[in-house]
Formats: sequence, C-alpha cells, structure tokens
Amino acid sequence: MADSPNCDLKSLSPLQLFERVTEQGEKVRALKAGKAPKDEIDAAVRMLLSLKLSYKTTTGQDYQAGLPPKDLVLINNGTAKEEDEDLVDPWNVQTSNAKGVDYDKLIVRFGSSKIDTDLINRIERATGQKPHHFLRRGIFFSHRDMDQVLDAYENKKPFYLYTGRGPSSQAMHVGHLIPFMFTKWLQEVFDVPLVIQLTDDEKYLWKDMTVEKAYEYARENAKDIIACGFDINKTFIFSDLDYLGTSAGFYKNIVKVQKHVTFNQVKGIFGFTDSDCIGKISFPAIQAAPSFSSSFPQIFNGKENIQCLIPCAIDQDPYFRMTRDVAPRIGQPKPALLHSVFFPALQGAQTKMSASDPNSSIFLTDTPKQIKTKINKHAFSGGRDTIEEHRKYGGNCDVDVSFMYLTFFLEDDDRLEQLKQAYTSGELLTGELKKVLIETMQPLVAAHQERRKQVTDEIVKQFMTPRKLAFEF
Amino acid sequence: MADSPNCDLKSLSPLQLFERVTEQGEKVRALKAGKAPKDEIDAAVRMLLSLKLSYKTTTGQDYQAGLPPKDLVLINNGTAKEEDEDLVDPWNVQTSNAKGVDYDKLIVRFGSSKIDTDLINRIERATGQKPHHFLRRGIFFSHRDMDQVLDAYENKKPFYLYTGRGPSSQAMHVGHLIPFMFTKWLQEVFDVPLVIQLTDDEKYLWKDMTVEKAYEYARENAKDIIACGFDINKTFIFSDLDYLGTSAGFYKNIVKVQKHVTFNQVKGIFGFTDSDCIGKISFPAIQAAPSFSSSFPQIFNGKENIQCLIPCAIDQDPYFRMTRDVAPRIGQPKPALLHSVFFPALQGAQTKMSASDPNSSIFLTDTPKQIKTKINKHAFSGGRDTIEEHRKYGGNCDVDVSFMYLTFFLEDDDRLEQLKQAYTSGELLTGELKKVLIETMQPLVAAHQERRKQVTDEIVKQFMTPRKLAFEF
Repeated sequence: MADSPNCDLKSLSPLQLFERVTEQGEKVRALKAGKAPKDEIDAAVRMLLSLKLSYKTTTGQDYQAGLPPKDLVLINNGTAKEEDEDLVDPWNVQTSNAKGVDYDKLIVRFGSSKIDTDLINRIERATGQKPHHFLRRGIFFSHRDMDQVLDAYENKKPFYLYTGRGPSSQAMHVGHLIPFMFTKWLQEVFDVPLVIQLTDDEKYLWKDMTVEKAYEYARENAKDIIACGFDINKTFIFSDLDYLGTSAGFYKNIVKVQKHVTFNQVKGIFGFTDSDCIGKISFPAIQAAPSFSSSFPQIFNGKENIQCLIPCAIDQDPYFRMTRDVAPRIGQPKPALLHSVFFPALQGAQTKMSASDPNSSIFLTDTPKQIKTKINKHAFSGGRDTIEEHRKYGGNCDVDVSFMYLTFFLEDDDRLEQLKQAYTSGELLTGELKKVLIETMQPLVAAHQERRKQVTDEIVKQFMTPRKLAFEF
Repeated sequence: MADSPNCDLKSLSPLQLFERVTEQGEKVRALKAGKAPKDEIDAAVRMLLSLKLSYKTTTGQDYQAGLPPKDLVLINNGTAKEEDEDLVDPWNVQTSNAKGVDYDKLIVRFGSSKIDTDLINRIERATGQKPHHFLRRGIFFSHRDMDQVLDAYENKKPFYLYTGRGPSSQAMHVGHLIPFMFTKWLQEVFDVPLVIQLTDDEKYLWKDMTVEKAYEYARENAKDIIACGFDINKTFIFSDLDYLGTSAGFYKNIVKVQKHVTFNQVKGIFGFTDSDCIGKISFPAIQAAPSFSSSFPQIFNGKENIQCLIPCAIDQDPYFRMTRDVAPRIGQPKPALLHSVFFPALQGAQTKMSASDPNSSIFLTDTPKQIKTKINKHAFSGGRDTIEEHRKYGGNCDVDVSFMYLTFFLEDDDRLEQLKQAYTSGELLTGELKKVLIETMQPLVAAHQERRKQVTDEIVKQFMTPRKLAFEF
C-alpha cells in the first residue's frame, strides 16, 4: 500500500515552498494558454492547490503571489476554516487543522459507516473478547459491511483477513504498526486466515528504485511485520513481484478487475493523468485482487466465495471502493473494510507520518536515546507558553501529539484518562506528559527490536512460501 | 496477438453500413457540440473514417450524407486514389486497393527496412539453406535489425525466436499458419529455441468471453500450432493466463515495460481512449515482455541479454516498435523483426482474413468439399467477364485471390511462374486456376488435420510446461 510521493514537500523551507507554488502557478497558466488537454490542466491545478495547502500549513499564511513569506507563524491550534476540505488519497493526506483530518466528514464523503458502540458491543459478543483499545478509542472508526462479516461469522461461515504495506524503505516507523497490531488482534479473536500483501511492484512503479531493491525492502519489511507476532500457520505474506509468478489464481483475478475498470474511472478515483505510466494506471487491480479468495488457491482450495475483511488506514479506501464496485460484476463477494485514522507526525496531526523524514517519526530502529530526543524536541505540544499559564488554563489534548501517541500505545484506559484530566486541568506539564510517552515507547520499540532479531531469513521464507494454512476449506 | 474487433463490419449490408456511418457522424457532431475531451472526439472521428472506408470498399462509392447506396458496384481493380492511406494496426487492416496494402509505403511509414536480395542471399550463406519461398516471394518483406541477428549468428552468439497468436476462436484459418510455417523453417535452419505466446488474456480483455473460454481456445489453438511440426525439445508454447502465474521472470519484465510507457504513448500507438479498460491499456507490456530472454529463466538460465527475433505479420509491429523503444531503457537488447504481408480474404485483398467470417477463409477444419465450394464461390477473380475477353486480354494476377493463395502455398517456383504466364496471357481460365488452388489446398488441409489428430492433450501439456529446452545457456 502507498506512502506519500509528495512527502518531500515537508522538508522544504517556507521560501522554497513559496517558489514551488509560484512555479506551479506559472505552469498552470502556460498549460491553459497553450490549450493543453483538460486532464493535464486539471492535474496541474490539483498540484497547485496541494502546494498552496502545504504552504499554508507550514507558514500559517495564505499564499499571495509576489509576497514571499516573512513572519512565520506555525499554527498550533485548529484555526483553519471549516470549509477547507482535507486532502485524502493513497498518496496525500493533508489538512490545515491541527486536530487532524475531520473523520466524521470523511465518513460522509467516502460513504462508509461509523463504527459505533452497537457494532463494538456486537464484536465483543461474537468473539467473547474485550474489544481492542483501537476500537474503544475510535482509532478504527469507520467500516463497510462489518455487520455482514459478523452475520456470517455467527452462522459459522468462514472469512479471511487481508492487509498490506508498500515497502518504500528499510526502516518502518511506529505508525506502520497500527494496522498490523489490530490485524493480529482480529486474527486471534476470530481465528481466521490472514494474507498480507507487500506491494513492491507499486514501489518500483512510483519510486526511483530497481525491481531488486523493491523486493529487498519487501523482505526486510516482512521481518518487522512478522515481529508483531503473527502465527506462521495462519498467515501468508507475499511480495507482488514474487507471488504473481507463482500463483495460478492471482493474475486471473487481476485481469478480471482490469477488464472492468476504465481509465476514466481510475482517473477519477486516483487522479492519474495521460502522462502516467501504464503500470500505475493498471496497478489498482493488483491491490484489488487479494480481496478475492481465488487469488490464493493454495489456502482456500480454489474456493471463490470466501468473504474478505480488510483492516487498513482510511487513505487506502479508494482502492477498495473500486474493488467493491467491480466485485459483483466478476461474480465475487465485496470485501468488507475496517478503517483507521492516520497516525500523526511528531510535528502535528496535519499530515500522516512519513518514512522519508526521520524526524517526523519514531522508527522501529531508533535507540532509547533517539526516542527521548525526538519526543522532547519534535513532539508538538498542546501546552501553554509558560508554566504559569499552563497551570492556570491547562493543556489541549486534542492537538497534543504526545497525548495522541499515548491513545495509540498506552493500553491502560484508566491511566490514559488520568493523564488526560491532569493535562487538561494544568496539573500535568508538557514535559511530564512527554516523559510518560518516552517511558511507553522505549520498552515497546526495544521489545519489537528483540522480537525482530529472532526473525531469521528462513522464517521470512516460510511466511512467504505459498502453502496451505491451518484451516480447511 | 490480435484479430480485428471491427470485423463484424464486413457482414453488414451496404445499407446497414450507410446507417452506421450516419449514426457515427451524428455522434461526432454531438461530442464536438458538447465540448467532449479531445481524445474522445479523436476516437469517434477515427471510427467515422474507418466506417467511411468500409462503406467505400463495400460499395465502390464515397459516402454522401442523406444519399443511401443505390447502384452497388463492387470494385474489382485498383481504382482507389493513391492518396487514400491504408489503415493498419493490430485490430484493423483496411485498404481501398484491390491489390492489397501498399507495402512499400508501409515500410516508409513504419520506418522498417525492406528485405532485399542482399539480405536473402546473406541468410542463404549463413544457413547453407535455400531461402524459404516466403522470403523469395516477398511474403516476408520487411525487417528490423535482421543484419544484427546474422552478425551475431555468424559470431556464434545465440538468439531465440518469439511469435504468437491471439486465440479468438477454436477454428484457425490457413492464413494463421503463415507465421508458424515460416517460424518453423527459421527454427530448423538456425537451430534456435522458440517461444510462442498465446494471448488468451488479451482475448478475454477485448472480447465477450470468460477467462476459462479464452484459456480453452489457447489450448485448442496450440494443437494447430503443434501440428505445424514444431520440435517439442526446442519449443515452449505458453498461455499468458497460465504462464504469468508460473514464471519468476515474466511479470518482472512486464512491470519494467509498464513503468517506461505512458498512457499518452499507448494512446498514440494503439488509439486507446479514456473509456478503454485499464487491462487493454496495460496489455501491450504483456506482448512486449517475451522479447526479453529473462522472461524465460527456465530456458535461458536467467540470462538477460539473449537476442530475440520476432517473425510476425506487419500489423503486430506497433507492439514491437514500443518494445524496441523501451528495451534500452530497461537494459535489454531490442528485439529484431521479420514482417509478413497480410493474408488476403477470399473476397479480395482489401482486408485480412478473419476467423469470425466463415466465408472469408479456408479453415483448418474445412472438408475437401467445403474448400472446393468456398474457392469456386468466393475466391475473388482477376479474370475477364467472358471467356472470349479472357482469351484476348488475359487475367490479372495482381488482384486474383486464387493466384495470391498459390504464392503462399504452392512451393514449386517453376509451376507458379507457368501458371502466372498462362493466366496473364489468357491461356488459363479462372476456373482452371481455381482448380489448381483447390488441388493444392485440399491435401494441405487434410495433412494438417491428420497431424493435428496426433496431437494429444498430453503433448499439448508437454509443450506448455515451463522447462529447459535442448540448448545450453
């Protein structure tokens, strides 16, 4: 699955960003003057708007032609106008609101359903297990057809889990673990097969990278995924570059999806243009195909009708909206989905974390000291400017990145609630809250590193070998 | 490889064609009035021109709006204006000239090279064999880089042959044999490996057909191909739907090509539009990839730099122009090509034969009686209207389909020359020439049927199993 190709924008200075906006504005004018094709102009305008939003997010000011940035005011609370729409697709997540993307709006825009208390209670009844804190805290907040999965489960009908990752660099950050931590829990409580797609072909197509490098990253990332504790007898991890050439069913499903999706459709969904390579244009079918059990004849004994449930971050939803649209036309069940919020960058919730900016993330390879320094130096604070003001008015948990991270990684509900009240009342200072986060993340990352060390190349090979799993179909 | 999806035009009556042209004209006007995207308008205009050409070919008259066809005059000699350009792409071959496509012009337009006497003599010297009559008679008339293949061959450097077929129906016609007959000869005189691609995925994408049906056609067509006499130890036949899921190298080459070709490029080369499915748009990469030896690691031991030579009909050249453009950018040698002329329909050389019109072709399943009836009834004649005129002025071999067929299938040069002189002088009548063709085709088809009966499912399976061939790399 996809990371942001525009993430390099975040490393630009305000002046560099200003110049990029100016350049892009000139490009749009030139295209319009030259009567370029409509889709080329549209793509350039889209890029211009995205650059302007980056400029505003960085400088707190609207871009004004001819007026380079002077006084830089980093915005530190939700001052953005409500009518500014968040930008969410598989390659971009941007909002001008420091609280992050407005997820209720996104549910309406995407046409998905909110994971409400009723659904969470139903999951608890069906599994007999306390719901994961990602569910209790709204980190997985949206779904499609989860009720149907539960209907089937209650009637002893099988389903399977499918998630994935686009392996863009050797190092993963803690945000990358969210879908895998949740998927592991789902696998345990429902006891179902799991397939994990590593889209190394996508990374080859989108990045300046060889096929060999992309495949190497896939295997390295597989180690971090395996270190989350997946059951080798119930989990199949695959690289597209590798599995496509070893599966009797995968390509057949890909070509079926490719027959039923037009360029007009992927242009509308993903914003592709005529200048994009044909690999990008046809790739969405490759992310769609694992939603159909016949892509894995070795696991499902060739059965075509096994229901699929996909836990993923909401930015991957466009792929699966497309998949759900195609499914009935190729005689397959629609995959169900569980959507998570984005994991915020240390610098604030305006964008999701990026593997390409070392300071935006806590990496799974960071030392305890690096974790401490990063949190202390970069974690955006919802606290007040002086201790006196903080004691008097209290901090703002809605924009405080340390508190946000704790909602992801501190499992103890009571402790989290105590911290929230203490911080909001002004009793707990920013430095103290950061200390709690540091003490939470250091052992978590160290334990991950310890488990990862145990993952040998041989174990990776076993996980990635097409084979029957511990289920009968 | 591709057959014509517009072939149904040939079965339309002049009046139906007239209505199609009128409708299409209205569609173009509506698109222009509605300011539709440029590429949509262009596609509609292209279709309009193609329909007008069909109309003219069928009726001998220019289309005139509001004037339905009245007196139908089938054109029977080269009266078309020279400036009417032939339409040649993988799905359409149309010309208004009864002699067929102007191949010298096509060489200039496609930027290929003519196979001249020097090259033919060089092939004879290199192989020590008399050149095939397809070379001697200009049936394979154009090439790209054949000199380089011969340079390498003379320096004991290996190469391999690649050809293919789009399996669109169970029955093949004699025209389909041309590339295979020639490829078989090339394989014998050069003693090199051969790979044959059956693009069942393409047929699934283009036609109203299931994946299973397309694969079934592929295996049925493989029987006819094997019946041409290919050496099982030197030949690998593969269906895309099947082989893509069993090859470690094929998909990697496909994705490499897909990264280096944009939608703009395939739009320019193949005339795709935004309304085409993404499978069609990315398919050219699948026909390109077998040009690279690393698509067949089992044959070439993973070697990437083995030169490829592709014998094919000239309408497939667009795929390989694209492939040759991409090759150096992905570090692969450009494939060399040998191009054949089109095989004419019984009704005349304006179009190539089509498997979807039973009367346009002699099928490999036809009985001796069917062959006789078809030739007598449908083979377009270059003879005169009365015996007296024929005796006086002679027949025209340039447009006589029976004579054209004999240039393909009658191996005896002296006999062919005698027939030409006798027919041109008026000594030989049309019925007599047809009799020679019937007596040539009947045993040829019968022998093919006999050989095909010997091709068991087990033999097909062996040819289609990825394996090492009788060559060391």
